[in-house]
Amino acid sequence: MTTYKKLIDKELPLFIEKVEMPDTLREAMLYSIHAGGKRIRPILMLATVEAFGQPIEKAIPAACAVEMIHTYSLIHDDLPAMDDDDLRRGKPTNHKVFGEAAAILSGDALLTQSFEIIADSSLTSDQKVEIIKLLAHSAGPGGMVGGQMADLDGEKQELTLEKLEYIHHHKTGKLLVFSVIAGAIIAHASDSQRSHLKEFGEHMGLSFQISDDILDVEGDQEKIGKSPGSDENNDKSTYPKLLTLDGAKEKLTFHFEEALKHLSASGIDHERLQSIAKFIVERDH
Amino acid sequence: MTTYKKLIDKELPLFIEKVEMPDTLREAMLYSIHAGGKRIRPILMLATVEAFGQPIEKAIPAACAVEMIHTYSLIHDDLPAMDDDDLRRGKPTNHKVFGEAAAILSGDALLTQSFEIIADSSLTSDQKVEIIKLLAHSAGPGGMVGGQMADLDGEKQELTLEKLEYIHHHKTGKLLVFSVIAGAIIAHASDSQRSHLKEFGEHMGLSFQISDDILDVEGDQEKIGKSPGSDENNDKSTYPKLLTLDGAKEKLTFHFEEALKHLSASGIDHERLQSIAKFIVERDH
Repeated sequence: MTTYKKLIDKELPLFIEKVEMPDTLREAMLYSIHAGGKRIRPILMLATVEAFGQPIEKAIPAACAVEMIHTYSLIHDDLPAMDDDDLRRGKPTNHKVFGEAAAILSGDALLTQSFEIIADSSLTSDQKVEIIKLLAHSAGPGGMVGGQMADLDGEKQELTLEKLEYIHHHKTGKLLVFSVIAGAIIAHASDSQRSHLKEFGEHMGLSFQISDDILDVEGDQEKIGKSPGSDENNDKSTYPKLLTLDGAKEKLTFHFEEALKHLSASGIDHERLQSIAKFIVERDH
Repeated sequence: MTTYKKLIDKELPLFIEKVEMPDTLREAMLYSIHAGGKRIRPILMLATVEAFGQPIEKAIPAACAVEMIHTYSLIHDDLPAMDDDDLRRGKPTNHKVFGEAAAILSGDALLTQSFEIIADSSLTSDQKVEIIKLLAHSAGPGGMVGGQMADLDGEKQELTLEKLEYIHHHKTGKLLVFSVIAGAIIAHASDSQRSHLKEFGEHMGLSFQISDDILDVEGDQEKIGKSPGSDENNDKSTYPKLLTLDGAKEKLTFHFEEALKHLSASGIDHERLQSIAKFIVERDH
């Protein structure tokens, strides 16, 4: 995972540095790109390609593209009109440093450029079209943006479990599933392998979100970077709140086991992908 | 032009209506889509395809996509953090009706979905990839978003003519040129035809902007929907300000003649495209 992360940390800024654009825009884009996330989405994509025994190099542009989309979504989510966050991973948020206008534009720029990077990669035209279609769908109104809107609509309301799963499935799940499926497309996976990997991605996405909610209740303040219980104080609907803490843990176990079952059934060399999934779900921050 | 406009007005909302998404997001997206613009970009694309004697049907998705990108850019430009406009074409702006969060998200959604629509069209994979690459470049940090950033950076400053042309070329020119070139790609134009059409688009884009600045000085308040002289009152750098009104008119004539020269040299059936260009440049609002 460290190798993949380092690779993305190195390659991702290069795509932005080589475009001619106003310095102010470049600085704002690179600030959030360098703000350093776990790079979970590109890591999942590269690990999927590798699980098929294929070279990961040709997946690097698409892996950087999905991280750019994830980064844009954080910049826009942090805006005063949205979650109004001053800090992200301990650093001032983009609009705190560059102002709201530059934050909106750097998000727009990252989103737009991500499609150019895939279209400009060395994949076949058919692969590019399939990946772009899936990425746009997963990130757009029928995916991540739709999930974000549903999340805002549902704030301060008691959500049903169904509504909560809709939000998570769209807001975070769709891009995670995309990352795995894009890896499968690049590695020329069969239809049956793709369908198992889709199930793997969906169950892992839910596991990821449930573990996040559990961490908020049980986590170590220093490691998770916020006070435990902050979701409850914000009246946020969470799995522990809807299902009790034990119920949430049971649900986590169920989804994680389903994820591993489908990963195994895909018949690929899944050892590394499995340990990445474990890391994502069992992380302590 | 009316036929093309009606076709786009009819087809464009269908792409949004068929996606499953939260009602609040759909309403906000459709509001700005229905707010009614001149549909200049899609009309240019369809007219280019027709000038090659090709059926325009296969260009409809890409034509709707570029109008979605234009619409998203207006929604984000109108936000309080950007131009802070309450009205657009006499109607309340998106954020005035749906709030800032929904306005940001509906812009993001329109931008993202535009790429899905092209990827999902009936063009060949090679055509889709070429169009997506050009659209992302024209709309992204090296294109429209870069121009918007430069415009914000240059506000309240006396701009040089070079800087003013950079802003216009990127902020509005790139999407106009894209529209013509995408039509050429769809119609399988030769390299030489493309290169003439690119020059046509660039000169027409500049003519469009210069005529806009002249309208602001000389236009009829009722027709242009704002008080003449509003640019001057806003300390905005314009062609008449940098070149005098006569100088600006001379420059308009030069660029428009160059545009028509290249259109003619492309060897396509350019009559309708020429009258559209005339309409765009010689409009009184």
